[in-house]
Amino acid sequence: MESKGFVYCVLVLFFLGFQGCADGRLLTEPKPDKDAVAAYARWLVSQNSWGTLNTISIELKGSPFGNVVSFSDGVPNKGTGVPYFYLTTLDPTARNALKDQKSSLTISEYPIGTCGNADPESPVCAKITLTGKLVLLEANSKEAKFAQTALFTKHPEMKGWPKNHDFQIFKLEIEDIFMINWFGGPKPLTVDEYLKYKT
Amino acid sequence: MESKGFVYCVLVLFFLGFQGCADGRLLTEPKPDKDAVAAYARWLVSQNSWGTLNTISIELKGSPFGNVVSFSDGVPNKGTGVPYFYLTTLDPTARNALKDQKSSLTISEYPIGTCGNADPESPVCAKITLTGKLVLLEANSKEAKFAQTALFTKHPEMKGWPKNHDFQIFKLEIEDIFMINWFGGPKPLTVDEYLKYKT
Repeated sequence: MESKGFVYCVLVLFFLGFQGCADGRLLTEPKPDKDAVAAYARWLVSQNSWGTLNTISIELKGSPFGNVVSFSDGVPNKGTGVPYFYLTTLDPTARNALKDQKSSLTISEYPIGTCGNADPESPVCAKITLTGKLVLLEANSKEAKFAQTALFTKHPEMKGWPKNHDFQIFKLEIEDIFMINWFGGPKPLTVDEYLKYKT
Repeated sequence: MESKGFVYCVLVLFFLGFQGCADGRLLTEPKPDKDAVAAYARWLVSQNSWGTLNTISIELKGSPFGNVVSFSDGVPNKGTGVPYFYLTTLDPTARNALKDQKSSLTISEYPIGTCGNADPESPVCAKITLTGKLVLLEANSKEAKFAQTALFTKHPEMKGWPKNHDFQIFKLEIEDIFMINWFGGPKPLTVDEYLKYKT
């Protein structure tokens, strides 16, 4: 009995080791070195599945309005760096973007689970803000089809979201990157360096 | 040996049960019913330790700039609903707020770990955006002392952050609440109902 209990217990630990906190996360690539700036930024975007998408609020007199959204930059391990979204105009974020495209997407390393004991605000726990324009993609365009596959692969639940809720595909056209992944302030990284990096 | 191994293994499981995915989280209160709107909103704010704080960017020509921050609304199980922050003007968020107080704090239920298998964008996985003014507290005021205790209790690492980095305490003066915690769009909730709710 003791022996069986031990084996069972070890199996549970083994299983926990795989599952851990990974529910809904697709962490398949190890974290790059902190000084490999483009690699780190692309890793942070590709490995995360959600973030806060910020727009300028119509209803709240120009306040910066953040909303929790899911995104995808490609199918797993083939990220492009460009975040795509599946948004409905029933929600203020899409409505705001159609009026004023100014936007940012903020992502934390914290929910990935690779920050050790660091506080979420610590510079050692990476954070990235991609600022630019939130653009509606033309339905049935090549890019919209690519984006839909990227989104539905990472977020299978989206396939079943109500067809009459006017979900459409948007992307963030990145114009500026703010990333902190260690002490010493934001890392210098151009949009070109970020987008051209090959994973 | 087997027996010792089993006991050790059970102890590890027991320890994992407490720690689990809870590193840095202070989840001590069960989730309220979805229709108890004020209770749910206060729970979401009190149980979470970080979010995205959005300001209007000075450097990025008025773009909505989200930054990952830690916050606290009180010592554990005594939340006030008012989020306090420990921010440095080395960082754009505090600099932006000193120029334009318009701000919002966005928090997801997802990292708390109570969304089951729901996607982070699903209305079943709650999200809240508190919009208002990001205000610098007067140093050594009664409220600043309260806030510092609330912050340092929830985020012990903050105590050791560099004294010469000009960290100061800010609060969000809430003017509007946007919360989705089920199907059917945002739940009606006034700031007064939210703040007066007794935990």
